[in-house]
Amino acid sequence: MPEPFSKALFLVENWLSAHYDVPEGETTVDRLFYPRSVVVIGVSESRDNLARIIYENLIEFQFQGEIFLVGRKEGTLHGRKVFTSLEPLNEGIDVAVILTPAPTVLGFLEACGKKKIPWVIIESGGFREYSDEALQLETEILRIAKTRGFRIVGPNCIGVFNSEHGFVVPFASLKRSMAAHGGVSILTQSGGVSFSFYRFLSTTNVGIAKMVSMGNKLDLDEIDYLRYLIQDPRTEVIGLYLESLERGKELMEVARSTPKPIIVHKANTGEGSREIAKLHTAALANDDQVVDAALKQAGIIRTRNFRSFANIVKVLSLPPMKGNNLVVISRSGGMAIVAADSAGSYGFRLFPLAQTFQDQIHSFFRAKVIRPTNPVDLGDLFDFDLYTRILEYVLKIEGVDGILFQHGASGEEREPSRRLVQAMKDLCHKYGKPVAFCYFTDDEELGVIKKAVNFPVFMEPDDALSALAVSRDHYRKKNTPREDPIAFSVHRDRVRRLLQKAIQEGRDPVLPEALAVLKAYGIRVAPSSIVQRQDDLKSALQKIRKPIALKVISPAVSHKSDVGGVALNLRSFTEARKTFKVLEGLDPESSSGFWLKR
Amino acid sequence: MPEPFSKALFLVENWLSAHYDVPEGETTVDRLFYPRSVVVIGVSESRDNLARIIYENLIEFQFQGEIFLVGRKEGTLHGRKVFTSLEPLNEGIDVAVILTPAPTVLGFLEACGKKKIPWVIIESGGFREYSDEALQLETEILRIAKTRGFRIVGPNCIGVFNSEHGFVVPFASLKRSMAAHGGVSILTQSGGVSFSFYRFLSTTNVGIAKMVSMGNKLDLDEIDYLRYLIQDPRTEVIGLYLESLERGKELMEVARSTPKPIIVHKANTGEGSREIAKLHTAALANDDQVVDAALKQAGIIRTRNFRSFANIVKVLSLPPMKGNNLVVISRSGGMAIVAADSAGSYGFRLFPLAQTFQDQIHSFFRAKVIRPTNPVDLGDLFDFDLYTRILEYVLKIEGVDGILFQHGASGEEREPSRRLVQAMKDLCHKYGKPVAFCYFTDDEELGVIKKAVNFPVFMEPDDALSALAVSRDHYRKKNTPREDPIAFSVHRDRVRRLLQKAIQEGRDPVLPEALAVLKAYGIRVAPSSIVQRQDDLKSALQKIRKPIALKVISPAVSHKSDVGGVALNLRSFTEARKTFKVLEGLDPESSSGFWLKR
Repeated sequence: MPEPFSKALFLVENWLSAHYDVPEGETTVDRLFYPRSVVVIGVSESRDNLARIIYENLIEFQFQGEIFLVGRKEGTLHGRKVFTSLEPLNEGIDVAVILTPAPTVLGFLEACGKKKIPWVIIESGGFREYSDEALQLETEILRIAKTRGFRIVGPNCIGVFNSEHGFVVPFASLKRSMAAHGGVSILTQSGGVSFSFYRFLSTTNVGIAKMVSMGNKLDLDEIDYLRYLIQDPRTEVIGLYLESLERGKELMEVARSTPKPIIVHKANTGEGSREIAKLHTAALANDDQVVDAALKQAGIIRTRNFRSFANIVKVLSLPPMKGNNLVVISRSGGMAIVAADSAGSYGFRLFPLAQTFQDQIHSFFRAKVIRPTNPVDLGDLFDFDLYTRILEYVLKIEGVDGILFQHGASGEEREPSRRLVQAMKDLCHKYGKPVAFCYFTDDEELGVIKKAVNFPVFMEPDDALSALAVSRDHYRKKNTPREDPIAFSVHRDRVRRLLQKAIQEGRDPVLPEALAVLKAYGIRVAPSSIVQRQDDLKSALQKIRKPIALKVISPAVSHKSDVGGVALNLRSFTEARKTFKVLEGLDPESSSGFWLKR
Repeated sequence: MPEPFSKALFLVENWLSAHYDVPEGETTVDRLFYPRSVVVIGVSESRDNLARIIYENLIEFQFQGEIFLVGRKEGTLHGRKVFTSLEPLNEGIDVAVILTPAPTVLGFLEACGKKKIPWVIIESGGFREYSDEALQLETEILRIAKTRGFRIVGPNCIGVFNSEHGFVVPFASLKRSMAAHGGVSILTQSGGVSFSFYRFLSTTNVGIAKMVSMGNKLDLDEIDYLRYLIQDPRTEVIGLYLESLERGKELMEVARSTPKPIIVHKANTGEGSREIAKLHTAALANDDQVVDAALKQAGIIRTRNFRSFANIVKVLSLPPMKGNNLVVISRSGGMAIVAADSAGSYGFRLFPLAQTFQDQIHSFFRAKVIRPTNPVDLGDLFDFDLYTRILEYVLKIEGVDGILFQHGASGEEREPSRRLVQAMKDLCHKYGKPVAFCYFTDDEELGVIKKAVNFPVFMEPDDALSALAVSRDHYRKKNTPREDPIAFSVHRDRVRRLLQKAIQEGRDPVLPEALAVLKAYGIRVAPSSIVQRQDDLKSALQKIRKPIALKVISPAVSHKSDVGGVALNLRSFTEARKTFKVLEGLDPESSSGFWLKR
């Protein structure tokens, strides 16, 4: 029976706060990503049936387990029987994937429970994201899951993607040929966003390990999945797309606990908060700055678009950039200048190359019309084996932390280019230094080289260098001894009362309240007093040791020091009185002085 | 005969400042881009001969004129005779392209002169960019050109690219199939950079009209080419890559004189200035800010990397974004949030859609699980013709300035996607509003759709929206009445003396000098006086009307108001004296007061 809305909300909240860990242990989560059998619920022969696509993806990706189909009508799909209920199926199925209208989900859940299926992926939409009423459904789902003892992915998601095992259950057609297998795992809320990551990564030749679209995160959320991915040997880099950051503190803790890089794309305004954003932009911007600072503190890399995400993932597949010393090697002198500009803007230093090196390079040139400095302009050198030797020579130099290699090739140079890139990859790992490879060529050649050599290709120096800068900063952060956070004992009630009082009085909190809030957070502040009339100055002064500071408090004066509203070092009552008079002049309407011990 | 270096430099400078216009008139410049005949000098049968590639490009791009070849050895290349000198050739050749070692260029120039060839493209390197000595060669080149009456492109360049006429003379192999023909013309200094533009534009399906690599700009420079492109009917947008900005004022004037958008990628530090940049970063940064402000004032769009250049070019092929009101239509709800975030960061407003519209959209949905607001989440709508209707509905709304349409398609949806994009293009121009089309799909489909419909495709919302913001700002700028610049009559000598005095005294200029410099520039400043001892206060005060302001001057105090070093509104001598004492306290070591009339 549906319960009243407020109670439903309470139950959901309660549950969420009660189950921070996945209690069954990690081996069970493993079953979600590597199931031995799966039942897809909601399948029909109709052309626009979405559950059918889930089934077809399992076939396309050669799922290495057993598949069962359940739908409203009996039938056969690609040679496999469609059952009309779970009744005839044996126990022991690892995962159920449900894509049926929201109101029908509860019935199927009960059926899954009876069959002791430990994992249910609910891809159906129409829950809390749609209406407050539908939240009741979620409460029911949780109740059944708790009673029956299974765990839930979603609802309102596209589920799990693990191409290694062929367990690919989004309800949009995917092509196996498109998805390179690699070390990047992705967690998103929205299915559409996870597709965008998938496509951006696959078009830039970055391989994917696992992907989860978490949907409404009714049961499992990013912290649960993160804990799994951190110990997953296939996952080297973790990308996270979040629309909200409810468990920020735990995210920080998880991030600190692992050497695996975590990259977060945090959307800073939801549908609702964006409305507010129009009215209170400044406040929201500050809020986002807090998110920024917190992520940085935990060594989490933040990105703001898909391309930079892909570029960072690419650079993280190379050895880390351990310092600022960069050498740019370029087939084009002009592009070397573009790269040098970009290098400067990311704080890199163009490492000065010794004269001996320069002389040696120079001896290679044909027309001797180029001067080899850093950037190294390869000028009229067309011997790609020589490029490899130059590359190795530079990598060997002790002070050099990394290289940007800018290549361009056309026609007959394409085949030698493959060899060059293969050598680059080997040298890169041999010397433990990153070589960011920028390739200026056409789509066709880009496509070929990406598939030929599993080595990241960047499109322009700005892409490569912004990513190398992230590699450098991440390396620094991870190798800086961690500072323990300061623990404050906060009197929250006092703060709440202070702010509520200001709100009741219909005004913004002012300086004295700011000081009181600081005090409540255990931060020591200097003694101070508000003085509204000159006559009160003397008695106030007796309570505070000299020299004192005098500041104006006035709604007309927000930037005090800009208008001379702050006086320091006042050493006597006479001095203070004089200055008080001056400050009064700043706002004759509603003058009030405030002072603070030096 | 070689002349002394200083004289050579003088001559070059003198020449450059004397010939700002191309005197022969525009029809002659037309011959450079549309020659009826061309002679390529430096050709040989050897495999790594570069001039040969120039000839092969002319064949590949089906040059619509006559071709002659000149090389050291007689021979035949692709069925065409190679002459050993220009002697046997008739007069009337429009363009000569020279790619021979620098010291041999002079001889060929004399020969070109004798044959009355009006345009010579010198692609050879080894001139001023290589050594100071080689500058002499340039002086000689200019002398010959002036005497013989021909004009020069380069040297040290890859020349001209005009695929419309098949006149493509870079010395690197290009493929005709790769180069879409379109409305963007590009001017660069470096050949490598022009290739990068070429490749970035062609891989993003942006068509190129004309391209010039200007090289050392010995004779013609960006202003000359710009003047031609501005009147060239094939050129709609002009992109400019500059390593230096010598004729900034003229660039501003040319930009102001045309409605064609001009996009500048200005590399802010050259090889030399970058060395200095390490020592004086701040100064250079300021310098770049001046460049920034000047470009903005002239309505020139500045970019800092190739991708944003390509994105801006794409957006400029759409109708302009005339205001801030944006509607986001998205197949993915999650991507709609990403887009909404991005829209906010570029200052767009998500235009509120009327309830009637929302109701109508809602009636289309199947599962009714999505609420249509702005962003419009297309949810479970799979009918692409309906997308077109929604698009037209939104474009019709009076307040809407532009649309971001986020599409994703797989498998069977690809064919209908082409129809959708074609409809989008038509509607976009019918209603004179931009539709930025973001397509999340794989490389293969991207390649196909780009070739199928000549409509710009963006890779992610951030790309599309940053470009739409440029469109909006450019539209605003071009439609804001131009403010005439204020003319100052400046006493430069006075400024020079002031600053030299400070340098001689081994110190930085201080506030009083700043005021004196302002005065020398004709800017009125309030009367003021420096007071070092309290005793001098009275006499100084008599010269200035009250109320006065008092400011500390001290090397120890750089941010005066932060430390209370500024007092305003002092109305009497007593007040001033008191405050003077207070300010003295800020720096007891070397106190000095300075005052300024209110």
